[in-house]
Amino acid sequence: MNQSAIIHTNSSHMQCVLHNRDVMLRLMTGKDITRAHCIYGDPHAWVKTSEGHRWEHDVIEMEKVAETATHFIFQVTFTPKNFRVKYHFIVCDELECVQFGEDGFTPMSEEVGLWNNFFIPYVHSSMAVNSPSWVKDTIWYQIFPDRFHNGEPSNDPPEVVDWGSGPVNNKVSFGGDLKGITLKLDYLKDLGFNGIYLTPIFSSPSAHKYDTIDYFEIDPWFGTKEDLKELGSQAHKRGIKIMLDAVFNHTGRHFFAFDDVLKHKENSIYKDWFHITSFDPFEYETFASAKNMPKINMLNQEARDYFVSVATYWVKEFEIDGWRFDVANEIDMSFLKEVHTQTRALNPNLYLLGEIWHDATPWLNNDVFDGVMNYPTGRAILDFSAGELDALTFTQRYLKTQNSVHPNILENMFTLLDSHDTPRLFHQLKHDEVKVKLALSLLYCSPGSICVYYGSETLLDGAHDPDNRRPMPWHALNHDFIDFMTSLASIRKNYPTITQAQAFEFVFEDDLLKLRFKHEPIEAWINIQSKPTFVSVDDLITQSFVITLPPLGILITQV
Amino acid sequence: MNQSAIIHTNSSHMQCVLHNRDVMLRLMTGKDITRAHCIYGDPHAWVKTSEGHRWEHDVIEMEKVAETATHFIFQVTFTPKNFRVKYHFIVCDELECVQFGEDGFTPMSEEVGLWNNFFIPYVHSSMAVNSPSWVKDTIWYQIFPDRFHNGEPSNDPPEVVDWGSGPVNNKVSFGGDLKGITLKLDYLKDLGFNGIYLTPIFSSPSAHKYDTIDYFEIDPWFGTKEDLKELGSQAHKRGIKIMLDAVFNHTGRHFFAFDDVLKHKENSIYKDWFHITSFDPFEYETFASAKNMPKINMLNQEARDYFVSVATYWVKEFEIDGWRFDVANEIDMSFLKEVHTQTRALNPNLYLLGEIWHDATPWLNNDVFDGVMNYPTGRAILDFSAGELDALTFTQRYLKTQNSVHPNILENMFTLLDSHDTPRLFHQLKHDEVKVKLALSLLYCSPGSICVYYGSETLLDGAHDPDNRRPMPWHALNHDFIDFMTSLASIRKNYPTITQAQAFEFVFEDDLLKLRFKHEPIEAWINIQSKPTFVSVDDLITQSFVITLPPLGILITQV
Repeated sequence: MNQSAIIHTNSSHMQCVLHNRDVMLRLMTGKDITRAHCIYGDPHAWVKTSEGHRWEHDVIEMEKVAETATHFIFQVTFTPKNFRVKYHFIVCDELECVQFGEDGFTPMSEEVGLWNNFFIPYVHSSMAVNSPSWVKDTIWYQIFPDRFHNGEPSNDPPEVVDWGSGPVNNKVSFGGDLKGITLKLDYLKDLGFNGIYLTPIFSSPSAHKYDTIDYFEIDPWFGTKEDLKELGSQAHKRGIKIMLDAVFNHTGRHFFAFDDVLKHKENSIYKDWFHITSFDPFEYETFASAKNMPKINMLNQEARDYFVSVATYWVKEFEIDGWRFDVANEIDMSFLKEVHTQTRALNPNLYLLGEIWHDATPWLNNDVFDGVMNYPTGRAILDFSAGELDALTFTQRYLKTQNSVHPNILENMFTLLDSHDTPRLFHQLKHDEVKVKLALSLLYCSPGSICVYYGSETLLDGAHDPDNRRPMPWHALNHDFIDFMTSLASIRKNYPTITQAQAFEFVFEDDLLKLRFKHEPIEAWINIQSKPTFVSVDDLITQSFVITLPPLGILITQV
Repeated sequence: MNQSAIIHTNSSHMQCVLHNRDVMLRLMTGKDITRAHCIYGDPHAWVKTSEGHRWEHDVIEMEKVAETATHFIFQVTFTPKNFRVKYHFIVCDELECVQFGEDGFTPMSEEVGLWNNFFIPYVHSSMAVNSPSWVKDTIWYQIFPDRFHNGEPSNDPPEVVDWGSGPVNNKVSFGGDLKGITLKLDYLKDLGFNGIYLTPIFSSPSAHKYDTIDYFEIDPWFGTKEDLKELGSQAHKRGIKIMLDAVFNHTGRHFFAFDDVLKHKENSIYKDWFHITSFDPFEYETFASAKNMPKINMLNQEARDYFVSVATYWVKEFEIDGWRFDVANEIDMSFLKEVHTQTRALNPNLYLLGEIWHDATPWLNNDVFDGVMNYPTGRAILDFSAGELDALTFTQRYLKTQNSVHPNILENMFTLLDSHDTPRLFHQLKHDEVKVKLALSLLYCSPGSICVYYGSETLLDGAHDPDNRRPMPWHALNHDFIDFMTSLASIRKNYPTITQAQAFEFVFEDDLLKLRFKHEPIEAWINIQSKPTFVSVDDLITQSFVITLPPLGILITQV
């Protein structure tokens, strides 16, 4: 038996407390393991027998829920007695069985000692994921405000350029604004979006506005505080949430405090708000190597209080529904925890989202973020849709990303295929509409909240930043594709358990990879052969009955 | 290659930020791996070359620092550039090398993508372990106050029994008290102890006092608040720290709030301070199944505030140096974090110790505990000393416990061989003095703080609770053994790097298992054969030059 491959820890993705205080346990093993059982009980439950004391316990077979490139993942869910759990596992390969606990392996002939059990010492209700319940049912639409829609030409800067001219860059204004978004709310609602994520809207000299000058003012390009209130009010009337972008890793170069440091150097009362490494020559830490983005020192109490007050101000005064934290993984964790505490006290339904592209376990323990930007799942979908992964490898990578977080955290993840930080979906998939449809369909079949980058619904093109920030082509919309996206959203709405963790399983059947939903009478079918295949179905999108599915074509059908 | 066995995560014991903001990384592999390298650099550091952009990185070979039953552990320490780290590994077996990152394995012929790296996005100084520096140099002496020394007969209860009478139980008073401890401070100082951990001293009907009635009063058996002040003051004069026992998982049955619930049932204003599961019949959650220990509901704000005020009161008014939290793993984590914040604000040098017997990773992230009661390391030592483990298995188990926490956390662990919750050391090792000396010597060679249960220095006997709580035999002290313990303490004092993590390595040499210290000119030698062996040494304890080492005999010698 490959004992070295068997993994279980008390990390939150392997030892999961669910909303009803049930417990879900996950065990990773090598692929030689054929069966796994969990032995569990109240650690304090002992019964007297004629031979001494015996531990009262239950035995339950675990389900193999996933296969990754290197491991099987077994899982079990149960209701603990007295909210206390002591447990270990029995794992078997073709030849033998052995007991596995925190301290290692014990032969079946010996008793597993106290020392070799795992524990959930007490299942507090506070251990369940405490995120707002609306998140998982949200389909986000990410807007880069300067490039979405110009609703109020009077606030355009004098140097505004014509809508649609190019190539684009990060300094030029196209005139998009908050009022423009408000005017398009019905368009977005019709497409099924019920959340809008706005990249930064506070005063800043750039088009992307990640170099903030004034965290308490709306950038004049985009309008006024009244415009934001109106957007929020109109959005909420339509059941649409609003999430703003919090840039707390760094400021812009002309943020008042950094300006003061530039002027007064070591005599500035703000010098400890930043990481100044030398005053002569003047040097300081930045985001990446961007000199216009000095890094904030959140260990300075005054800086910290200031930025906490920014976070609370917009929640309190503007009733926003979420904050997305830019470069979240480089910010001091205790600051983020304080923001969590203070903003959630103002609005218990506020969504706190971190920009973290890698394993975010340390940030996902109920005290920092509800979820993070889930690029890894998006990446697996993209690589498969691009034809770069075979179907088995795709399922392994997809399931690895799904099983590496607590299931209720997964339901708060912000899964996406592209953003202002990546080439556009249409560009990444080489303008192949079949592939783009596959990627978007898989996105819409994924749990948690999902996000579409503005323009994807009309196959807007764009390579790397800044080309991925082109103005929305209102005069040349692709209505067929918009209809396709609208259908995807309605499937997600009509079969609502889609948004739950582990809602489907992958099944390989002839030419097809199928996503078989557990609680809904639908399946998604993907042609994984290199030639077209014919399938007879009742397709929810096209209503046709016999259709040709091209290589990597996908359909979603009732079963 | 056994790829399934290769493990690295961003857990604090594998991704360790050290005090100087250096980074230590650990990688677990199967035993087929012959070499491992770490590839690391600033994720934002790119240089232009004729072929495009190239990531600036360093390559460093990792050191194999430990072998457990199932894995090798490789380790590397480096200074990150710009406090940011992106990294992956290259692992090799006899046949091949492969690149390993967060997303899995990449052949050597391909570039490791952004997606397949690990990250420490920014090395904040706040990520280093923030515990008081005195902890690791502390040799604790655990006292069960009723049974240590009677310094003030006038506070004995009328039903006090004669010192030394038996068998003991958990209701009887022997008359031990705080004044008795103060009178024995010089005795303890001579033995090299510089910390005293007292089991509970607050008002309670039992002898162990884990069923507290009044958290703001010293139990009258033990004396007065003045006595505690005097003990603290006299101890501090001698460089001895005082740690009290905080029983916050449950109260006693006659704690005022529970008394009120008993009396007024659902009408009690304290009913939500506990977990009452039914008022008729009256049922409630308890510690284990002890009806005299009702479990506190720390999610109730008033209960929480009350117990936070207990924790701060004794720190503020009595200048204690530490709190040991009883049944710490069953207490709501957010309460413990609040206690951490509030008590550390009063005394930044306060030691916060959790009673957790198993993997305590979730409690050891700088915001709850500095360390926990390290039974697993003690257990490895005891099993080896008892002759139940061969030497190789012992080293594997010992090193597993040492490498499963951050090295600076290891230096705050409270490593022990026995306590009021286990049979006594002398009993566990079947009264075999050679074995007891081996166990204690290994304890004193271990990093972090260590603890001796009162009476071990004179080979006090005792089986399970309550027999392990016998009165101290002041009239029949074993002076030879006391001398032995004194010598162990002086070695620890004279060679101070012993207390650091990874201070020694195990070396097998002929009949001997040797502990070779890296920064001290000493070694510990253990005879691991089943017959006596003769060694020629300059023994630090006995001063002899050729000595006979019995099976499992140990000596510590200069080299």
